[in-house]
Amino acid sequence: MNPTACILVIGNEILSGRTQDANIQFLGRRLGALGIALREVRIIPDVRETIISNVVELRARFDHLLTTGGIGPTHDDITSPCVAEAFGVPWEIHADSFAKLEAYMAPGSFNAARQRMATLPRGAVPIDNPVSVAPGFSIGNVHVMAGVPRIMQAMFENLAPLLSGGKPVVSASWHADGLLEGTIAEGLEAIQHRFPTLDIGSYPYERFDRRGVSLVSKGSDEDAVFEAAKAVRGLIARLGFIPIKGEPAP
Amino acid sequence: MNPTACILVIGNEILSGRTQDANIQFLGRRLGALGIALREVRIIPDVRETIISNVVELRARFDHLLTTGGIGPTHDDITSPCVAEAFGVPWEIHADSFAKLEAYMAPGSFNAARQRMATLPRGAVPIDNPVSVAPGFSIGNVHVMAGVPRIMQAMFENLAPLLSGGKPVVSASWHADGLLEGTIAEGLEAIQHRFPTLDIGSYPYERFDRRGVSLVSKGSDEDAVFEAAKAVRGLIARLGFIPIKGEPAP
Repeated sequence: MNPTACILVIGNEILSGRTQDANIQFLGRRLGALGIALREVRIIPDVRETIISNVVELRARFDHLLTTGGIGPTHDDITSPCVAEAFGVPWEIHADSFAKLEAYMAPGSFNAARQRMATLPRGAVPIDNPVSVAPGFSIGNVHVMAGVPRIMQAMFENLAPLLSGGKPVVSASWHADGLLEGTIAEGLEAIQHRFPTLDIGSYPYERFDRRGVSLVSKGSDEDAVFEAAKAVRGLIARLGFIPIKGEPAP
Repeated sequence: MNPTACILVIGNEILSGRTQDANIQFLGRRLGALGIALREVRIIPDVRETIISNVVELRARFDHLLTTGGIGPTHDDITSPCVAEAFGVPWEIHADSFAKLEAYMAPGSFNAARQRMATLPRGAVPIDNPVSVAPGFSIGNVHVMAGVPRIMQAMFENLAPLLSGGKPVVSASWHADGLLEGTIAEGLEAIQHRFPTLDIGSYPYERFDRRGVSLVSKGSDEDAVFEAAKAVRGLIARLGFIPIKGEPAP
């Protein structure tokens, strides 16, 4: 079985709709490629008790817990001290990160607010931030990253080699213009029953004047994915439609 | 206190990164305008036990639970029977919805898979779907909607007048080019302390060659929002930057 993961998105701005999340899709794809099954995402506000109770619960339930957001210098950036509380360890200056940030900042500007970004739970291992120096960190199976997509992505690529992964998830898809979900549903369910370890998904599309359904076989057993895709192709043809390989062009 | 809400996004395709969610931001904004505080979002897979346990837990914790996804005709569309199980009621043909769908479908095409879309938990009230007829539904404080954004949005507008809301959330923002979060953090925290019922948020932006921070005061007490925004404006000016009203142009 592949290891499992959960993402905890921390930030009022996602819940209020001010900001469109851009991290979940990136992480879902990258984790899949590493053979880590993303099983749940939670989006929660910048509220101390909420962050702590979610970290405590989710790190026990999943092999990896990744968090995004709440590690900047302002009063609502409370992810780091909350993770320290969740682990029951002190939240203290991390000497190496402190030195790096001090060297990066303009003289005289490394104030108390910015020093919080060099304050980590005791025992945490920093995750390098090549964009703006202030680090993320890992402690146990919890990996704390920035919310800004460019920084989060750079941090994730530094973290990825250290994550225990599994067999990469592969997928194969066929689509057909004019085909509707209700028409293929019964045959598709039979294919899903033949391949219980795979996810057989059906996704309607609408592209200008073309409508149809895209049928995706996905899983970490490559041979089964190939066999299931062949069965999907045959089903489309038997229903009188033309099977086209891959996703419909956008 | 405004009523609270939670969104449960049901679908493997969001977790795998195949599909970018487009519903959370829409619902966050619309709920805020109705005076309903969106407190949590969960994204979960199409797994029976997971759906049932989340519905049971979340409908007890929040005033409104909204779900998106999993109400189509295929084997992985299991939201509706799972909600019936969560409520402990039978899942049965809804005569009125059945008649509407049958009339809408081409003769002979209203097969077993499509009839599932007219099968609802006993006691559920359909939410009209002006796009493709197959309804969403409300049962108790749980509101079940489609995942396709165009259909979800139409369903939500039919649902909205029936939701018990509160005082709309309003916001006011000031930004300043050249200002950094670490520079304004201390003064901003003091403003947050003066206005504990509001959310005072700071959001860095980068627009071509312009970088700065946008400072947003948000809450359902309009006078407090106005006062807090005035304080933010004064803070920006005292730090030697030019306060500009509203969000930076994209």
